[in-house]
Amino acid sequence: MFVTFEGIEGTGKTTQIGLLAEDLTRQGKRVAITREPGGSRIGRELRRILLSLETKDLCDRAELFLYLADRAQHVAEVVRPALADGMTVLCDRFTDSTVAYQGHGRGLSPDLLRQLNDTATGGLAPDLTIVLDIDPEIGLRRALSRNLETGAQVSEGRFEAESLAFHARVRQGYLALAAADPGRIRVVAADAAPREVFASVRAACQEAAARHG
Amino acid sequence: MFVTFEGIEGTGKTTQIGLLAEDLTRQGKRVAITREPGGSRIGRELRRILLSLETKDLCDRAELFLYLADRAQHVAEVVRPALADGMTVLCDRFTDSTVAYQGHGRGLSPDLLRQLNDTATGGLAPDLTIVLDIDPEIGLRRALSRNLETGAQVSEGRFEAESLAFHARVRQGYLALAAADPGRIRVVAADAAPREVFASVRAACQEAAARHG
Repeated sequence: MFVTFEGIEGTGKTTQIGLLAEDLTRQGKRVAITREPGGSRIGRELRRILLSLETKDLCDRAELFLYLADRAQHVAEVVRPALADGMTVLCDRFTDSTVAYQGHGRGLSPDLLRQLNDTATGGLAPDLTIVLDIDPEIGLRRALSRNLETGAQVSEGRFEAESLAFHARVRQGYLALAAADPGRIRVVAADAAPREVFASVRAACQEAAARHG
Repeated sequence: MFVTFEGIEGTGKTTQIGLLAEDLTRQGKRVAITREPGGSRIGRELRRILLSLETKDLCDRAELFLYLADRAQHVAEVVRPALADGMTVLCDRFTDSTVAYQGHGRGLSPDLLRQLNDTATGGLAPDLTIVLDIDPEIGLRRALSRNLETGAQVSEGRFEAESLAFHARVRQGYLALAAADPGRIRVVAADAAPREVFASVRAACQEAAARHG
């Protein structure tokens, strides 16, 4: 089963992925945790370019194509082999990030983005996508304090420097995606304590697993 | 005016661009020489990834999207500003390389590639494209001896390691592109001495300049 986690910065994706991996492992499942950008060896070089503040002069379309390059390599080198091996793959960001950030956030055409995503993934779609939903003001405050704590060498600084209005558009983008594809995408409120949020994540995952067979 | 140079490895693109730049400068024109991949600052990092033999596990689609990222950034940061400033831009490889190498060479759909090129360039097309044409066996021998001479730190090793059959397909791709767009693309035989080849390059350029007005 292929599960992706989406949401703006500071929603707690990493924490929830960790909790779900622990839970699935306890059930005897083999789990692979991965992420975009940066899930493959080449992807880690691209992640550095994409997320560093130094490359703030990166144009919108170059940014888009770098994410797609990272995705194509990640799917071919990491996700498809793990799924073929029978593992449950938990991925931090995937195709919906492109539509939410580059589409709703930056204004590129969602139709074009869907087609480009298809080219990058060769048609691979998640069985379940969890959108962790939070007020951007709270999310960005969390992300900022996390960066200050960690020193944030692999900070998502370039995006966190975007305006609150940008992140509000991204959030609305996620909600629109979820409304259009309720079978695959579940929206989970992410402003509660991590264990409470996880109860909803776990329920969504069990339901999808039952559907998946 | 925007002039691009195309052709397989070892056709002498760099030499011809140098000769044309010299000639145009003597005529009082301001000339910008650039190239893909690697014409922008971010592009130089991508060029290293794209052309190094170490990344031979790069999948076809990731390769494609990296070239497109490089192109989008290069057009926005280098080519359009130079053209807007009234310069003549001479570019070593551009959109036709993608169709010839990733399409005819690797088998990706030429229609998809044309559309992706359009997205990357925002519709910018060269006023003139010179395809330097040579037997792949001769071209690759030249490229190899050049790499041995220079130590080839920025070698095009990953492509030169491809089979002769691959390069023969790329050459046929260029000839097909030229047949389909004779107004923009001129094929120049590149197996003569550089000065002889340049006489044809110069003539094609003067004709295009007259057309360009």
